[in-house]
Amino acid sequence: MERFYIFVLMANQDDKFKKVISHAKEYGYVFQSSEIYDGLSAVYDYAQNGVELKKNIRDYWWRAMVQMHDNIVGLDASIFMHPTTWKASGHVDAFNDPLIDNKDSKKRYRADVLIEDYCAKIENKIDKEVAKAAKRFGEAFDKAEFVSTNPRVVGYQEKIDSILQRMGKSLEKEDLADVKALIEELEIADPLTGSKNWTEVKQFNLMFGTKLGASAEHAMDLYLRPETAQGIFVNFLNVQKSGRMKIPFGIAQTGKAFRNEIVARQFIFRMREFEQMEMQFFIKPGTQKTWFEYWKDARMKWHKSLGLGEENYRFHDHEKLAHYADAATDIEFKFPFGFKELEGIHSRTDFDLKQHEEFSGKKLQYFDHEENTSYTPYVLETSIGLDRMFLAVFSNALQEEELENNTTRTVLKLPAVLAPFKAAVLPLVKKDGLPEVAQQIVDELKWDFNIAYDEKDAVGRRYRRQDANGTPLCITVDHDTLNDNSVTIRYRDTMEQKRVKIEDLRDIIKQEVDVKTWLKKM
Amino acid sequence: MERFYIFVLMANQDDKFKKVISHAKEYGYVFQSSEIYDGLSAVYDYAQNGVELKKNIRDYWWRAMVQMHDNIVGLDASIFMHPTTWKASGHVDAFNDPLIDNKDSKKRYRADVLIEDYCAKIENKIDKEVAKAAKRFGEAFDKAEFVSTNPRVVGYQEKIDSILQRMGKSLEKEDLADVKALIEELEIADPLTGSKNWTEVKQFNLMFGTKLGASAEHAMDLYLRPETAQGIFVNFLNVQKSGRMKIPFGIAQTGKAFRNEIVARQFIFRMREFEQMEMQFFIKPGTQKTWFEYWKDARMKWHKSLGLGEENYRFHDHEKLAHYADAATDIEFKFPFGFKELEGIHSRTDFDLKQHEEFSGKKLQYFDHEENTSYTPYVLETSIGLDRMFLAVFSNALQEEELENNTTRTVLKLPAVLAPFKAAVLPLVKKDGLPEVAQQIVDELKWDFNIAYDEKDAVGRRYRRQDANGTPLCITVDHDTLNDNSVTIRYRDTMEQKRVKIEDLRDIIKQEVDVKTWLKKM
Repeated sequence: MERFYIFVLMANQDDKFKKVISHAKEYGYVFQSSEIYDGLSAVYDYAQNGVELKKNIRDYWWRAMVQMHDNIVGLDASIFMHPTTWKASGHVDAFNDPLIDNKDSKKRYRADVLIEDYCAKIENKIDKEVAKAAKRFGEAFDKAEFVSTNPRVVGYQEKIDSILQRMGKSLEKEDLADVKALIEELEIADPLTGSKNWTEVKQFNLMFGTKLGASAEHAMDLYLRPETAQGIFVNFLNVQKSGRMKIPFGIAQTGKAFRNEIVARQFIFRMREFEQMEMQFFIKPGTQKTWFEYWKDARMKWHKSLGLGEENYRFHDHEKLAHYADAATDIEFKFPFGFKELEGIHSRTDFDLKQHEEFSGKKLQYFDHEENTSYTPYVLETSIGLDRMFLAVFSNALQEEELENNTTRTVLKLPAVLAPFKAAVLPLVKKDGLPEVAQQIVDELKWDFNIAYDEKDAVGRRYRRQDANGTPLCITVDHDTLNDNSVTIRYRDTMEQKRVKIEDLRDIIKQEVDVKTWLKKM
Repeated sequence: MERFYIFVLMANQDDKFKKVISHAKEYGYVFQSSEIYDGLSAVYDYAQNGVELKKNIRDYWWRAMVQMHDNIVGLDASIFMHPTTWKASGHVDAFNDPLIDNKDSKKRYRADVLIEDYCAKIENKIDKEVAKAAKRFGEAFDKAEFVSTNPRVVGYQEKIDSILQRMGKSLEKEDLADVKALIEELEIADPLTGSKNWTEVKQFNLMFGTKLGASAEHAMDLYLRPETAQGIFVNFLNVQKSGRMKIPFGIAQTGKAFRNEIVARQFIFRMREFEQMEMQFFIKPGTQKTWFEYWKDARMKWHKSLGLGEENYRFHDHEKLAHYADAATDIEFKFPFGFKELEGIHSRTDFDLKQHEEFSGKKLQYFDHEENTSYTPYVLETSIGLDRMFLAVFSNALQEEELENNTTRTVLKLPAVLAPFKAAVLPLVKKDGLPEVAQQIVDELKWDFNIAYDEKDAVGRRYRRQDANGTPLCITVDHDTLNDNSVTIRYRDTMEQKRVKIEDLRDIIKQEVDVKTWLKKM
């Protein structure tokens, strides 16, 4: 159960982020869900290119975690679980958001978000002061110095800090009356109507409920799982025994989870329906520090193998720990809206297994044959949002480049191993037998790779289209091809062109896109 | 919306099927969901081997459908869709099961299943007559002749036929009063209490509902999708335009769907949470007959490429068509409980797109540049249950063989392309440096394949374990290996053993398991 209050303030989503969203739609990566019915808030569909990118990320993770580790196996637990699972995990009692209603407008808000938005307005004032000063001082302007010395800005910042600190403490103590008091003291109004007529703050559970069975009388209340982790814990002993696993060992899983977020925003960063990639590593109690460091290092190497830029990652160790954890860190990535959590690495102790022992009445212990003792293992978790990873890769890849001829090109520099299409085959013209030769090349290469064919428009325009689509290689068939069995291969990132033999294409593409080659960068 | 009443009678699930279920658990393929909480009915988890088999089946389908076809692209639509989607598709009004309550026991049943179970009891009587006669006549017994001539058996069969025919007609006409009358005439009693005190028969919707949003006041009623197809239809135009697709073209999708089945049985054959693999092929009106035949043929070839035995497949053309279809057939597979639907191929006309046009007020038409006309495409659907495909492959693979030395072995003869582990590396003994050499081989091969390492117990026992696990190849490292860099490779299906060079292992394994090699059998 990973639910922290985020105190990092959001600047207005900038141009770059808007471009990311519109490019994702235009080039068939991400569509608003049910768009013909005017959409469903905070739910998205992965389109024809998006589904391939998402699948390639998932496979790249699975290869690194499961295939490359003898002692990590997979699992695919169902979304529906026995409801007692969520009693044991603490979700039924504590997986809540603090909500407040406006009595006049009847609108409902997250109390913490109202307060954060209030602070964001102060933050905007800071930004304005900074912009004004930057204009005044020109090149001599030192932003860091300005914000730490200008009295007005310092005052704003102190106010923000004190508000957020008070809110954080009150939420932790479940002192909801003080959260309401804070809203009233700050004179926060309903953003839609301006009314300050608020109800009490109440906790609202974020799980989606449904009913299993036919009649109200005989129905069982179920939840859509809010996280995939519990599916691993309840299956721990079955996997260990049938798989003859020895500690330390891991169970990896990818799958959908659901959270009824009241304020879901930032495109696919926070959705109501999302996908997790999680690995729970079962260890001997007392070894958790060692494994925590091991997995911090291993997971960061995995991220960096994709070449999105080392400067775009940082660790953020948690000072405040969840009740089940004895150490926790986030791998944060620089999204278009700033550094945000991409993956969490948590030392979860034996909290979950012990809870399931208590609620199920079954022993969930490991028998260590070598030491002839039984114990409840400790757990080290690595948990990454697949949709966030998608957004990280996609937004990082989208670039606008000034070219030498003073034009610009939009290029999606996806890591070749993750690109939806590995190459596009283009006949220079739509006649003289060139389309047929191009089609033959497609028919040969498609056994090994996802290959596009494109014959419409001038070849320069097709290059641009494939650049924007993220295709790492273009293969052009021209009239010389008919004589020399050679084609021009063009590299998306450098725009370099080379003449190569058709028979060498398979190996050339493989060198660029092979998962093995990329994993070896870890 | 695929919902037909199945009139094929189920014999008691026989020994083979019980073995399938227990083998699936023992060897880490399928576990009952939430087993430590005594399970969740008709929901299952895929365990460490099951997740790999399921993934390999999904990938094999995706490769054949998407990667191999220039004109088929993928999609990954969300499980949550705008609720009007299910109004348009007809699910809100017509996706029902006929239910009946017993007034004394307060238990609820599917009316059609009560009647089918009644018929199954008559079927049992036939079986008993057959068994008696078989015993009496010995080798001379001709079962086919007996059942078609013995007056008692013929009488039983006629009774069954007439009951099922009447029920089928009444359900089609929505004449629920007659379904109840039939139950009363047959004097069907509550199987738990014997009471014949029944309520009226009522239709019950099979969709799982949930609520999006925080308060009862502002919540939106959502459904968990009961099929994946509608996610394709509502995205049709976005995909066509952003992907510049020309008709004919297809959109393929795999994903979870949910049905609140009252009577869900037969292990993973009919689950409340299940996964579909669907492709909707958009065509010009008038060409549907041609494409129906094309996809019947193509899909059957895909199945047969896996080598499960040509005699285990048959087409079953629908005589009664769903309201949206103008032609439909099932590919049936011989499961342990008889021939049952594995995949459906349906000519859906323009029903769905037209419905979504009507309910959304948006045009969902294709503009044909060559002919300069617009039209609503027709749709040809291929739809396969991934879990059923899993059960088909798994149950077909599980065999018990008499060996020459009068022992038996249990072997899971999975198609090598689908097997969870491609090879197991076994040091002959756990000393003399053999485990280290074996581990080196694993470390080399795991870049390309999912490889197991097993050093426990005698090597013969390990071979049996890998046989039962479905691993196509075993690689044994012995003392000679230290001198000649060779190992013994053993083939699961033939138990043949060969001495090969370590450096050749990669190519040998590849030849057995490469997706490309298998797809070329299509």
